[in-house]
Amino acid sequence: MAYHQDIKIGVLGGGQLGRMLLQSAIDFNLELHMLDPDAQAPCHQLASSFTQGALTDYDTVLSWGAPFDVITIEIENVNVEALRELERQGKKVYPQPDVIALIQDKRTQKQFYQERGIPTAPFILTENREDVAQHVGFLPAVHKLGREGYDGRGVQKIASKAEIHRAFDKPGLLEKLIRFEKEIAVIVARSSTGEVKAFPAVEMVFHPEHNLVEYLFAPARLQQHLSEKAEDIALKVAEELKIVGLLAVEMFVTPQGEILVNEVAPRPHNSGHQTIEANYSSQYEQHLRAILGLPLGDTACKIPSAMVNLLGEAGHSGPARYAGLEQVLELSGVHIHLYGKKITKPFRKMGHVTIVDTSLERLQEKARFVKDTLKVIA
Amino acid sequence: MAYHQDIKIGVLGGGQLGRMLLQSAIDFNLELHMLDPDAQAPCHQLASSFTQGALTDYDTVLSWGAPFDVITIEIENVNVEALRELERQGKKVYPQPDVIALIQDKRTQKQFYQERGIPTAPFILTENREDVAQHVGFLPAVHKLGREGYDGRGVQKIASKAEIHRAFDKPGLLEKLIRFEKEIAVIVARSSTGEVKAFPAVEMVFHPEHNLVEYLFAPARLQQHLSEKAEDIALKVAEELKIVGLLAVEMFVTPQGEILVNEVAPRPHNSGHQTIEANYSSQYEQHLRAILGLPLGDTACKIPSAMVNLLGEAGHSGPARYAGLEQVLELSGVHIHLYGKKITKPFRKMGHVTIVDTSLERLQEKARFVKDTLKVIA
Repeated sequence: MAYHQDIKIGVLGGGQLGRMLLQSAIDFNLELHMLDPDAQAPCHQLASSFTQGALTDYDTVLSWGAPFDVITIEIENVNVEALRELERQGKKVYPQPDVIALIQDKRTQKQFYQERGIPTAPFILTENREDVAQHVGFLPAVHKLGREGYDGRGVQKIASKAEIHRAFDKPGLLEKLIRFEKEIAVIVARSSTGEVKAFPAVEMVFHPEHNLVEYLFAPARLQQHLSEKAEDIALKVAEELKIVGLLAVEMFVTPQGEILVNEVAPRPHNSGHQTIEANYSSQYEQHLRAILGLPLGDTACKIPSAMVNLLGEAGHSGPARYAGLEQVLELSGVHIHLYGKKITKPFRKMGHVTIVDTSLERLQEKARFVKDTLKVIA
Repeated sequence: MAYHQDIKIGVLGGGQLGRMLLQSAIDFNLELHMLDPDAQAPCHQLASSFTQGALTDYDTVLSWGAPFDVITIEIENVNVEALRELERQGKKVYPQPDVIALIQDKRTQKQFYQERGIPTAPFILTENREDVAQHVGFLPAVHKLGREGYDGRGVQKIASKAEIHRAFDKPGLLEKLIRFEKEIAVIVARSSTGEVKAFPAVEMVFHPEHNLVEYLFAPARLQQHLSEKAEDIALKVAEELKIVGLLAVEMFVTPQGEILVNEVAPRPHNSGHQTIEANYSSQYEQHLRAILGLPLGDTACKIPSAMVNLLGEAGHSGPARYAGLEQVLELSGVHIHLYGKKITKPFRKMGHVTIVDTSLERLQEKARFVKDTLKVIA
């Protein structure tokens, strides 16, 4: 479809990913219309129209989607049947409803990798807790709910028989616990024209003691053949899915140099925020180019970067304040992105900070400083 | 003043500069309220509130400004008396009304340079056409209206006595016609805390035959001592004015290596668009930092860039279309910015294109290609 600025685009979800998509859409004169269950969602004042409603409700999605030419998502927990009906009505729905459905269920996602020869950790499908108990020999493993496991929910480590009582009593899967050296992500775009491009791999940096992700580093510090392998795998997943739009592919790098797909998200992703400042094209612009059938942008890095998520401080709930903002803005190469959420809660994603620097050492120092200094409190 | 996201900011003008300021303000959770005479101005759907009204009308500006804590501008043709009254009421008005008033009149602007030892072309103040005729010996000169000369209007070259009939019959000035090798610009920010920083000088590239600006090149290709001299002069102008906010300083570089100030603009400027993609901080973010008293951002270039203004094609008026957009988006490092104007007219500023590339030769080739390929037609 040829670009024209009067094309009507609907977006399911109006959170921070939608907000950054909106910022990019302004450059293309594109109006984005959004649906979100939260009346105060980050996009509520910025979208060309904002509708409050449940993304998982068939009738809501169907009637909301009626006026648009193209429909996309910024969150995958949406009503796929309504999207299928909108597609039948002739609308472009990108990513396609079938792709969203496959990804929504971690069981079908894993089976897909297996069928298509995409490397992933060994797994067993389980129907309920009793079923998990049948596979003691497979432990230690990560037990994952098939559906509705978002943002760390629906995932449970089961080290041994003694922990099986913690298993979910619903359809899920047991995945072999993988020792990994690095956790990386590659964001791929596939256009409605079939063109594909991968952003360089990025790396999650873990705190040396707490074993929590501290910040993200781009590009990933990997031997070149591993970076290339990771990009090839991510491209293969996107091509096998025939997705139109962005696909974020999270992967593990094992000590043996294997690369295993962990999971994917069919939308802009937390691991691509830094592309706004650090790459020739941002993931947000790339998503718009992909769903509009425009040529994909160059994904190369302009400059190395680190990205720190800004989470609500533990013990603080209420109207958000940003302590340490001025000290952080004194550093060269620091760029803050606040998400417009008035209320902070413990661990709520309130914003992120991107840092660009030509020196990897300084990047690390600055990332730690930002992490230690900037606090979202109430 | 300490940063807080509930600070109410009013902006006089809602054009493309305001639009890019809005895109940056989103990252700081800042809401911008805008006043513009055009109900369809580029910000009309994006500002937190948009009021249609005359920027030059005392009562309009005064009553519109009442709810805000900080007031700024994206165009300098505004009612200064109303801003003075808002300042008396305790609001922060940045840039300050006295600075805007001085810059609004090219006569006081030139006198200011002369008094403060800022290098500028020799000039004579003139009151009317008859007065111009008294200074035949000063020709060839550029005759400028003191007030209301915007966007190339109010400027007239007078080569000799025979052309004096073209002189304005109003207060203005005659400026010695300068032979220059390059036309450059330096954007400076001065914060309410007194901190100052200059962006690297940029250069206007003229078409080899038509003698029209073809595109902008950043950083300017100048010997280092000349770049530094230009930045020093621009910083001096900002410090002498004690401006709070951005100041764009346009300068000529003569064949003798002199640098002369041509004129200044107290706001984000066309010569700083490329800072969005090419510098550590954009001019828009820098303006927000300056007026909020936040630390100023690093102004260094991440990567060389060129910027092409996208003007309405001659002979085309009506609903805008963008021919050649897809070819241009196929080039690596190209980023388009459309300004949301539905209607194109000959030479109307409809958008711009920034190109980033590590190779200066490729940048030039791509800038020419964009200029020749992307056309705003009706």
